[in-house]
Amino acid sequence: MFLRNAWYTAIWSKDLHDEPVARTIIGDDVVLYRGASGKAVALEDRCCHRAAPLSRGKVTGDALQCGYHGMTFDGAGRCIEVPMQPMVPPGAQVRAYPVAEKWSTVWIWMGDPAKADEAKIPSLPWLSSPEWKLTPGYMHIEAAGQLLVDNLLDFSHVIHLHPKTLAGDPREATTPVKTERSAEGIRVGRWMLDFEPAPLFAAAGGFNGRIDRWQFANWRAPALVFMDVGAAPAGTGAPEGDRSQGVSVWSTHMITPETETSCHYHFGWARNFKLEDEAMSQLIFDGTLATFLEDKAMIEAQQKKLQGAALDGLVDINADTAQLQARRILAEMIARENAAN
Amino acid sequence: MFLRNAWYTAIWSKDLHDEPVARTIIGDDVVLYRGASGKAVALEDRCCHRAAPLSRGKVTGDALQCGYHGMTFDGAGRCIEVPMQPMVPPGAQVRAYPVAEKWSTVWIWMGDPAKADEAKIPSLPWLSSPEWKLTPGYMHIEAAGQLLVDNLLDFSHVIHLHPKTLAGDPREATTPVKTERSAEGIRVGRWMLDFEPAPLFAAAGGFNGRIDRWQFANWRAPALVFMDVGAAPAGTGAPEGDRSQGVSVWSTHMITPETETSCHYHFGWARNFKLEDEAMSQLIFDGTLATFLEDKAMIEAQQKKLQGAALDGLVDINADTAQLQARRILAEMIARENAAN
Amino acid sequence: MFLRNAWYTAIWSKDLHDEPVARTIIGDDVVLYRGASGKAVALEDRCCHRAAPLSRGKVTGDALQCGYHGMTFDGAGRCIEVPMQPMVPPGAQVRAYPVAEKWSTVWIWMGDPAKADEAKIPSLPWLSSPEWKLTPGYMHIEAAGQLLVDNLLDFSHVIHLHPKTLAGDPREATTPVKTERSAEGIRVGRWMLDFEPAPLFAAAGGFNGRIDRWQFANWRAPALVFMDVGAAPAGTGAPEGDRSQGVSVWSTHMITPETETSCHYHFGWARNFKLEDEAMSQLIFDGTLATFLEDKAMIEAQQKKLQGAALDGLVDINADTAQLQARRILAEMIARENAAN
Repeated sequence: MFLRNAWYTAIWSKDLHDEPVARTIIGDDVVLYRGASGKAVALEDRCCHRAAPLSRGKVTGDALQCGYHGMTFDGAGRCIEVPMQPMVPPGAQVRAYPVAEKWSTVWIWMGDPAKADEAKIPSLPWLSSPEWKLTPGYMHIEAAGQLLVDNLLDFSHVIHLHPKTLAGDPREATTPVKTERSAEGIRVGRWMLDFEPAPLFAAAGGFNGRIDRWQFANWRAPALVFMDVGAAPAGTGAPEGDRSQGVSVWSTHMITPETETSCHYHFGWARNFKLEDEAMSQLIFDGTLATFLEDKAMIEAQQKKLQGAALDGLVDINADTAQLQARRILAEMIARENAAN
Repeated sequence: MFLRNAWYTAIWSKDLHDEPVARTIIGDDVVLYRGASGKAVALEDRCCHRAAPLSRGKVTGDALQCGYHGMTFDGAGRCIEVPMQPMVPPGAQVRAYPVAEKWSTVWIWMGDPAKADEAKIPSLPWLSSPEWKLTPGYMHIEAAGQLLVDNLLDFSHVIHLHPKTLAGDPREATTPVKTERSAEGIRVGRWMLDFEPAPLFAAAGGFNGRIDRWQFANWRAPALVFMDVGAAPAGTGAPEGDRSQGVSVWSTHMITPETETSCHYHFGWARNFKLEDEAMSQLIFDGTLATFLEDKAMIEAQQKKLQGAALDGLVDINADTAQLQARRILAEMIARENAAN
Repeated sequence: MFLRNAWYTAIWSKDLHDEPVARTIIGDDVVLYRGASGKAVALEDRCCHRAAPLSRGKVTGDALQCGYHGMTFDGAGRCIEVPMQPMVPPGAQVRAYPVAEKWSTVWIWMGDPAKADEAKIPSLPWLSSPEWKLTPGYMHIEAAGQLLVDNLLDFSHVIHLHPKTLAGDPREATTPVKTERSAEGIRVGRWMLDFEPAPLFAAAGGFNGRIDRWQFANWRAPALVFMDVGAAPAGTGAPEGDRSQGVSVWSTHMITPETETSCHYHFGWARNFKLEDEAMSQLIFDGTLATFLEDKAMIEAQQKKLQGAALDGLVDINADTAQLQARRILAEMIARENAAN
């Protein structure tokens, strides 16, 4: 059901310390921690002795000690200490998952460790670059991750669901989008010229008059969406490539399925303006959080009417093109992976 | 399991406005709303596009617009607007349910629309007549509707479960009832002559001494019970037909199954005395609510010990006669309906 | 799955009065009450008439009257009163369970009543003897009772899970235990000579220096563990049999499975010192409760990773010897019982 040979976002790097964190990822119960050496580790969150969650244990050096009987495991999942006996019995180990830290994010590889190639982590430099200021967040969503991907590849809902933040001009309801498929994934977006600014953009960009606004969402399998969005005063040359009068944001959405009907949602806006302005960071964080909570409420309500993320019996419309392409690509990848096993 | 070709109470008319209301009725998720023309509408509560609950949308004129992507449906369930495209794709519609408004109540027909005949709505004129004053209420019950019907057709439990409101004289425990079956349904009841009044009747009727009391419950398929109950000072001729010295109430109970183990309960006492007396209305509403909450608690506890409303392995007693007849009539109706499909 | 022909702890005697108590025991819903004669009664908690829980009823003399319609049952489960009719219909009865009261505890026999022999109740005289002071408690645990038994037969977890109360010396982590099997059950334990006292023992026994400490746990089928634990100042002869300078406790743990993944836990420490000292009783009750809440939290987390109490795929270590023997004995008893049916 899920693509296993893939890098998934496990947690923001800033949120991983020497306290173990439990997180279920594509159905596997995982415990994450950062050892004394600073390296992030991901293990099966179930002691091989009596099944206690290792996330109730404690980090000792680079190892993790079970909080129940004290079995201790190194970062490769090997048991290195057993209570009240000197020898470690055969088979005493838990699964370890390849982990990589890049773009301020801890990534976990859920499939065959031999295939874990850090070069396959998508390029998201704005998450860690000093030229961009990131306002990161996390929420748990009681809906299939695919429903959130669908949401992010769709611009038609913005004017209905986010009138207070992201929607500003009634023409947004009818401005067409263009969907492109590349070797890497999907790109869908549009320009909106001489439009009224949306409230959050007006506040962030300090726009008084009309703007030229752009929205381009990129999807990468299995469940990553990053958007090049922004606005400049109308007629200042943005569509032709001069964004110098405007503001740019990489609206980044890392979705990690938890179960068939729930997911982890790591989100963040990276902006290229007023980098040191704390009030601006707060404004953007609050505005995006409010927006994403609107999505969460709708998607969770939607989930209750669906089996997983299946669209059986539903009617597609033109605005669904990007999401349907993304679903098809992912389904093919999963089918290939299952066929190879 | 449920009778589909039947009128069910969907909501009190007074509670339906231009805000959509979600209600599951015999297993179907339904959204109810009142359009600009004043007409009540009932649609499938699931957008045909991406399954969002239409009850999260908004009423626009007589239509309902989905709150996610803006698909809009008329009162017949036809999609009349699609975001970002001029044409409505084929098959874009949701189920619409026949609705009728009568006796201060919105009724919904859950079966074949061609068979929806408003003349089949039971006659409950006291719910809307100026000669009666209604104190209506609603509660959700986590038990099969049939368990509540059983309760209402049984007088033996009153003295055990409702000693503070409806029971007044120890002889109520042994006064026999008479059950009659007619073409329309079931009638069960009794007279209790020269009895001590029950607390709620004593307060409502202002009785100081003994009374002649009557209780006659009528059942109509699938799940409606209305009772002719009341009391008059003992010996003033009520049993012979002169109720002029007493007080009368139509205790009305409209039960709508939600799932196999839950139901909607619309209840109301319509009285023929002190029609304008607000304190009396409050007294009666509070007293009936307290009583029905006692029933709710017991029935919900009972449900946990049962599979649906099945009585397998249980022992019947004489006091169960009316409920067993009602169950048999309904089971025959459902069997006939299923056989015809 | 459960041993039925066995005495289980139903409730502390002190907690059973004339108010009915509902308790599910090895899957059966039971109502317990103490009748006017003082005798404890256990009946099926489901009226044979309409399945209402009898635990919502009231005790009348030595009988129990259903709170819904008033059916009344004697202590043998026979219906002796039916509303609105003089005769009791055939088959109107509920199951009655043999009950015995011994050692301040109400015991219930869940199997064939003909086999209920009070002599088979394990001997726990310290629970009711004037020479011991008991501080009894109860908690409900959302985990299989067997997981709690496992916990109590294991000393290796103490230093990891209970450092604030029961563990005092780092050498506890490596001091071996000895497991013995007898006709009656299992005994596992150890002496720890010249050790630092654990916090709870230091406070209770008033020890300033090192101690000789003993821990001997006894298991009796199906799920009873009682421990002879205590400490004396080091070198005062306790290992040789002279405990006169020390303090002794019977740490008693009566576990009653509720479902496959939950249990009732009646616990108590009976001490042989400062019998009348209320502050000491409070100190011990608070200390043991804090300890057992640590066990509860861990075992409930463990349960979420397991199917029932099965250990499939897990690795055993030396410290598991006693628990594995106890599991094997119980499994054999259940197999024999099932084979005989």
